[in-house]
Amino acid sequence: MTRVFAAALALLLAAPAAPMAETAAQTVATGDLGLVIERATGSVLLVDQSDRAALARIGGLGDLSHASLVYSPDERFAYVFGRDGGLTKVDIVTRQIAARVMQAGNSIGGAISDDGKLVAVSNYEPGGVHIFDADTLEMVADIPTGSKTIGLVDAPGRRFVFSLWDAGETWIADLSGEVPQITKIPGIGKNPYDALITANGRTYIAGLFGEDGLTALDLWDDTPTPIRVLPGYGRGERQLPVYKMPHLEGWALTGRDFVLPAVGHHQVLWIDAATLTESGRTDTHGQPVFAMARPDGRQVWVNFAHPLNDTVQVIDTVTKQVIHQFKPGPAVLHMEFTPRGHQVWISVRDAGKVMIYDTRSFEKIGEIDADSPSGIFFTARAHRTGL
Amino acid sequence: MTRVFAAALALLLAAPAAPMAETAAQTVATGDLGLVIERATGSVLLVDQSDRAALARIGGLGDLSHASLVYSPDERFAYVFGRDGGLTKVDIVTRQIAARVMQAGNSIGGAISDDGKLVAVSNYEPGGVHIFDADTLEMVADIPTGSKTIGLVDAPGRRFVFSLWDAGETWIADLSGEVPQITKIPGIGKNPYDALITANGRTYIAGLFGEDGLTALDLWDDTPTPIRVLPGYGRGERQLPVYKMPHLEGWALTGRDFVLPAVGHHQVLWIDAATLTESGRTDTHGQPVFAMARPDGRQVWVNFAHPLNDTVQVIDTVTKQVIHQFKPGPAVLHMEFTPRGHQVWISVRDAGKVMIYDTRSFEKIGEIDADSPSGIFFTARAHRTGL
Repeated sequence: MTRVFAAALALLLAAPAAPMAETAAQTVATGDLGLVIERATGSVLLVDQSDRAALARIGGLGDLSHASLVYSPDERFAYVFGRDGGLTKVDIVTRQIAARVMQAGNSIGGAISDDGKLVAVSNYEPGGVHIFDADTLEMVADIPTGSKTIGLVDAPGRRFVFSLWDAGETWIADLSGEVPQITKIPGIGKNPYDALITANGRTYIAGLFGEDGLTALDLWDDTPTPIRVLPGYGRGERQLPVYKMPHLEGWALTGRDFVLPAVGHHQVLWIDAATLTESGRTDTHGQPVFAMARPDGRQVWVNFAHPLNDTVQVIDTVTKQVIHQFKPGPAVLHMEFTPRGHQVWISVRDAGKVMIYDTRSFEKIGEIDADSPSGIFFTARAHRTGL
Repeated sequence: MTRVFAAALALLLAAPAAPMAETAAQTVATGDLGLVIERATGSVLLVDQSDRAALARIGGLGDLSHASLVYSPDERFAYVFGRDGGLTKVDIVTRQIAARVMQAGNSIGGAISDDGKLVAVSNYEPGGVHIFDADTLEMVADIPTGSKTIGLVDAPGRRFVFSLWDAGETWIADLSGEVPQITKIPGIGKNPYDALITANGRTYIAGLFGEDGLTALDLWDDTPTPIRVLPGYGRGERQLPVYKMPHLEGWALTGRDFVLPAVGHHQVLWIDAATLTESGRTDTHGQPVFAMARPDGRQVWVNFAHPLNDTVQVIDTVTKQVIHQFKPGPAVLHMEFTPRGHQVWISVRDAGKVMIYDTRSFEKIGEIDADSPSGIFFTARAHRTGL
C-alpha cells in the first residue's frame, strides 16, 4: 500500500462518526483488542488481534512522543499518558475520548492500581506524582517530591512505587487507607532514570544514569533496603556514547534469568533472578533498546538504537544464542506479543506500519497501516502487574 | 439470606428475559466478567468482578459435575466441558448458548489452542481426544488412544498434551500443520490421573494413582523423557484413605517453589521448581484439594476434602506458615483470584453462595447467590497458558 493511500485511509479513519464507529457499538468483547500510539498525530489506532486489522482511529490526545498507557480491569478504558502532561481516558467500546485533563507540564508515564480504582502519573515539572480517580479523572492525591519523578509502577495492595532523579530516592505510596502512606527509601544511587517491577510485584529495579550499576528493592521486606546489582553495568569510565538509554520496562524474565539491554554496548546481559548476579552476555547487532521475552520465556526479541534500528534479533533463552535476525523496516520502535505468545506485533515508524509475525515460523502474517506508530498495547495488559 | 429466598432468586434468574438480562446489555466490555458453574442445575452464572454481582444465568448445559471451561482470546465465548460429554459454546455477550455438541459419552476436561482456533476435549469413553473448530464446533481431528484420557492441557505452538490412564503414556499432539503430529512418550507411570502444565508451558507434570510419585516432562527438550519427581509422594504403602484425590490444576508456583496438595495427608508439599525436589512441608487443617497461589505468589490459599471442607487456610510463601484460617461455610469447592490478586472468590456449595474476600485484610467484601456453585472462571484466563 502506498503512503498516499495510507494517508487517505488515515483521514477516513479520523472522520467523525465514520462508518467504522457505527459498527463499533456492536463489538462488545474487548479481550483481543489493542491500541497503537501514533506519535506524530497525537492519535491512537484501535486494532483487533484476531482479525489483524485496524478498527478505528481516536485523535486529540496531544503530544504522544514517548507516550504509554494502561487499561481498566474490564478492558474498556485506556488511560494514555502524554509527554505534555495530558492524561486522556479513551473508551475503546465507543471509540471516543471519555475524559481528558492536563495534569502537569511534563510527564513521564503512569500506572493503575491493582483494584483499577486509581490512576497515577509521574511528572518532571512540577516534580511529583498525581493520583486520579479512574472513573472521573478527578485528582484525589498530590504527592510532590521536589524532584523529577520517574520509574512509576503499580504494586500489589493499592501501592505505587516511583523514584526521584534528583534525590536518588525511591518512594512507596500506599493508597489502601484514607490517607496515602509514603515510605521513603534513600540511597538508591545517582540519578535513577527508569525502573521496572517484576511481574509478581516483588522486585523493583532502578537503572542509574549518574553512576554505574542498578539498584533493587525487595518489596516483600517489611523495610526494603537498596541492593546493588551489577556494579559494573552502565556507561563505565570511558563514558561510552549512548544513542538511547535502554527502556527498562522491556526487561524480560525468562526461566530463571532476567535479560537486560546493555548501556552503550552491543550486548544483552543475563542476570540470575534469584541472586541478581550476572549469568551471561550475548553479543547483538546494535545497542539494544527493548529486550522482550515471549510470554513463555523461550525467546527474547531485541530491537536497537539508531542508526541500526531497522533490525530485530531473536535470542533463544536456553542456548543464549541469536537464532534469527531480520529487517522489519526503518525505525523499529516497539514490540508487543499476543498474550499467549503465538504472534508479535512490531511498530516500524518510518514505514508507517505495524508488522505482524508468527513467533515460531518467523513468517510475516500481516501488516496494518499506522501513522508513525510507536508503542503497541494489547488489552491483556489490564490483568498484569507492572505494565 | 434464607435458602428459600435464594431459591426464589434462582428461579427469577432462570426465567427467560429476566430483568438481570436487561441490565446486562449495559455491560459492554468483557475483561472483568466470569462464569460460575452451577453443578446441580446444569447452568452457568455470569458474574461481574467490578460490581461483585450476578448478571445472568444461562442454562441447558447438561451434567456439570466436575465441569470446567476455557475462553476464546477475545473473552467473548466460553467453551464448557461437561462430564456427560457435552461441549457447549456460551456467548457471554448475548448470554446465550451459541453452539452445543454431545461429543462423547464421558469426558474429563478440555483446552483451547494458543491461537484460539481449536478446542480439544479429553474423553474416558470412548477414550481419546476430540478436536473442534472453535468457531463452528465441527470436529476437525479425532485422536483415539484406546485408553481413558486425562490431564489434557494446551501448550505453546498449537499443541495439546494429555495422558493415558491405562497405558501410562503422555502424548503431545502438534496441530500446527495440516495433519496432527503425535509424539508418544511411554514410561510415565501407572495410572496417571491428572496433570498440569506450568504457566510458561514448559513443564508438564502428571500425578499417578497406581504408584507413588509424579512424572515431569520438559517440553522444551527436543525429545522429552520422563523425570521422576518426589518418589515418596502418594498414598504410600499403608494405602491411606483418600477422600478426594487433589486437583493438580490448582498447583501453585510461588517465587521459586511449587506447592502441591499431599495425597491422603493433612499437608501441602513444597517443591523447588528448578530441581523438582522437596523443599518443605506445611501441616494443614485437612486433606487439601486445591492449593492456589495468589497471582503475586506471596500467599497460597488451600481448601480441603470432606468432612473438613468448610474451612480455608492461607499460607505465607516466605515463612511457609499458616497465617490465616476461616470458615466460609459448608462445602468450599473452588477459589478464583482476580487477575491482579486483590480479591478471591470462593464457591460455597451448600450455602448456595459465592463469597468474596479481600486478600490482604481477609475481610469479606461481598457475596453472590448461586445454585450449588463449583468452579469459578474469570475471563482473564483467556490470556494464560494451561488453564
